Amino acid sequence: MSRFLKNGTIMLDTMPSIVAYGSAAGRMEGEGPLGSCFDYVSEDSTFGEGTWEKSESRLQQRAMEQALIKGRLSISDITFAFAGDLLNQCTSSAYNMRNNGIRFLGLYGACSTMAESLALASVFADDHPGTLDLAMTSSHFCSAERQFRFPETYGGQRPPTSQWTATASGCAIVGDHAGPPYVKAVTIGTVIDMGIKDANNMGAAMAPAAYDTIKTHFENTGTAPEDYDLILTGDLGYVGSGLLRDLFMQDGVDLGERANDCGMMIFDRERQDVHAGGSGCGCSASVLCGHILPQIKSGALKNVLFAATGALMSTTLVQQGESIPGISHAVWICGNQT
Amino acid sequence: MSRFLKNGTIMLDTMPSIVAYGSAAGRMEGEGPLGSCFDYVSEDSTFGEGTWEKSESRLQQRAMEQALIKGRLSISDITFAFAGDLLNQCTSSAYNMRNNGIRFLGLYGACSTMAESLALASVFADDHPGTLDLAMTSSHFCSAERQFRFPETYGGQRPPTSQWTATASGCAIVGDHAGPPYVKAVTIGTVIDMGIKDANNMGAAMAPAAYDTIKTHFENTGTAPEDYDLILTGDLGYVGSGLLRDLFMQDGVDLGERANDCGMMIFDRERQDVHAGGSGCGCSASVLCGHILPQIKSGALKNVLFAATGALMSTTLVQQGESIPGISHAVWICGNQT
Repeated sequence: MSRFLKNGTIMLDTMPSIVAYGSAAGRMEGEGPLGSCFDYVSEDSTFGEGTWEKSESRLQQRAMEQALIKGRLSISDITFAFAGDLLNQCTSSAYNMRNNGIRFLGLYGACSTMAESLALASVFADDHPGTLDLAMTSSHFCSAERQFRFPETYGGQRPPTSQWTATASGCAIVGDHAGPPYVKAVTIGTVIDMGIKDANNMGAAMAPAAYDTIKTHFENTGTAPEDYDLILTGDLGYVGSGLLRDLFMQDGVDLGERANDCGMMIFDRERQDVHAGGSGCGCSASVLCGHILPQIKSGALKNVLFAATGALMSTTLVQQGESIPGISHAVWICGNQT
Repeated sequence: MSRFLKNGTIMLDTMPSIVAYGSAAGRMEGEGPLGSCFDYVSEDSTFGEGTWEKSESRLQQRAMEQALIKGRLSISDITFAFAGDLLNQCTSSAYNMRNNGIRFLGLYGACSTMAESLALASVFADDHPGTLDLAMTSSHFCSAERQFRFPETYGGQRPPTSQWTATASGCAIVGDHAGPPYVKAVTIGTVIDMGIKDANNMGAAMAPAAYDTIKTHFENTGTAPEDYDLILTGDLGYVGSGLLRDLFMQDGVDLGERANDCGMMIFDRERQDVHAGGSGCGCSASVLCGHILPQIKSGALKNVLFAATGALMSTTLVQQGESIPGISHAVWICGNQT
């Protein structure tokens, strides 16, 4: 039974398990430092489809299939699915869910979607024993770039602050106790806009939201950075991660080595030309489900604060001179139930 | 404490109250048959803003303000807000929420969003006593037409099956018992696609989803159409509503006079040139919050099944030859707690 604490934080007193998780990625992500972690890697980025939007939907389906297979589950075992993505009208999720019979709650949280979906699925699983609640998202470089910036064939010059949308997806299924990882608490964020107008500097637009949510989570739960092995944002990239550290340093808090960012982990900055790091909903989703959850399950990590961050960017509003709001949600994932 | 029944239905055993609700609408909606029901009607469709997207965000803010004022609440009383809209990246909701401090969970359910948000807010309110959870959505004719079809200045010919996106918004706040209306149960829908490819026939794309969700709700709760004073879809319009009746008639079930549709209620078909009726998330939201909830509060309606319907239409996918998936969620709202 989940218990509302205050100011956006819910404690999950029964601590439901992430009973299964799966990940899928494109070729470039497969060639990155975490390539061997992903359950499914496409040999190209098409996933056998003829358009990038359909490719992304198929990619997301692959991550879901992997979670189901690894959990020895079938689609009919899923009670509710919480999913969304970056594409207009969240089509990757909607077309993945089409006619599969899963009760579906569509989300839009930009790149915060993995934390938003996992938070909601965890609260639902905690409050409704016996249910299995799915959290999922995806992103694709080609569909995202075309929609938000330029078609991939345009060949535009990318500024150093720009991030590289990962072609990747992650899926987590939350249910009754079945061993670690356990979800202990979630903190829901607020929409924060500090006036950033540069659509090629998402990290700066999102860092204040990450700061606010993580700080709120610490205050509400009575914890400090030292209580976590890993404070994992996604995807602030190199620019936003530096800003997040600076914001905490202004409070006299040093996040230190325990802070890392999915956007800095998924690609090799030297070897892969990604500028300020990875981005896209699928970046944090695939890093969490492919790389982090297995380490919590194995006991290598005990306490992880997963704080995915989203830039609620609209090309239409940016063209109208508006700044870019950010949001971040946090999920506290543990290796044991104490 | 909410209790998962089966197949998408959650019973809210404590039956939380919709403690406050507000609505706002544009000039044309204000001149329609329900014009006097809306709490705020703009004298034009700009709501004092310079772009249609900002107008829609301001419109949504007006509905939220009205709900707060009528409930003698302030923004700081809200625990969680569930909201989304039709615009790419759900900007009406995100910009409305910008820097207001509300813990925000963004949704995308196309025109089903009022039912999706109200379902989630109700489950959260039921499970977390003492919280106040907000559900909201909006739509604007000019921003939606430009995004999904043609700019409003284009002057294209609309086919008879097309619906008119309402410029309207509704906001409902759910919390502990404070008299009627009460939320008794919610049923979450699945994504259903019967192959409709005509972006000007949303009613046909959504009717099978409405049929599936309402039928599932009846089965799960052991109720029949006769148990409701009103089965209110939104927004199938005239074409989709006829299809919904036909689908039930194939089962030998006559929905009869108790079935109505927000898209058929918000405009005067004879006097206002809206073809197959109203549409847009804000249509069902404003009809529910402006016209229906007051009748439940007054006792004029005892049992209402509110089943908002969404066409998860993407112009990109339609151009790629894909059909349009639909979804519907249902919320059972009562005048008393038995």
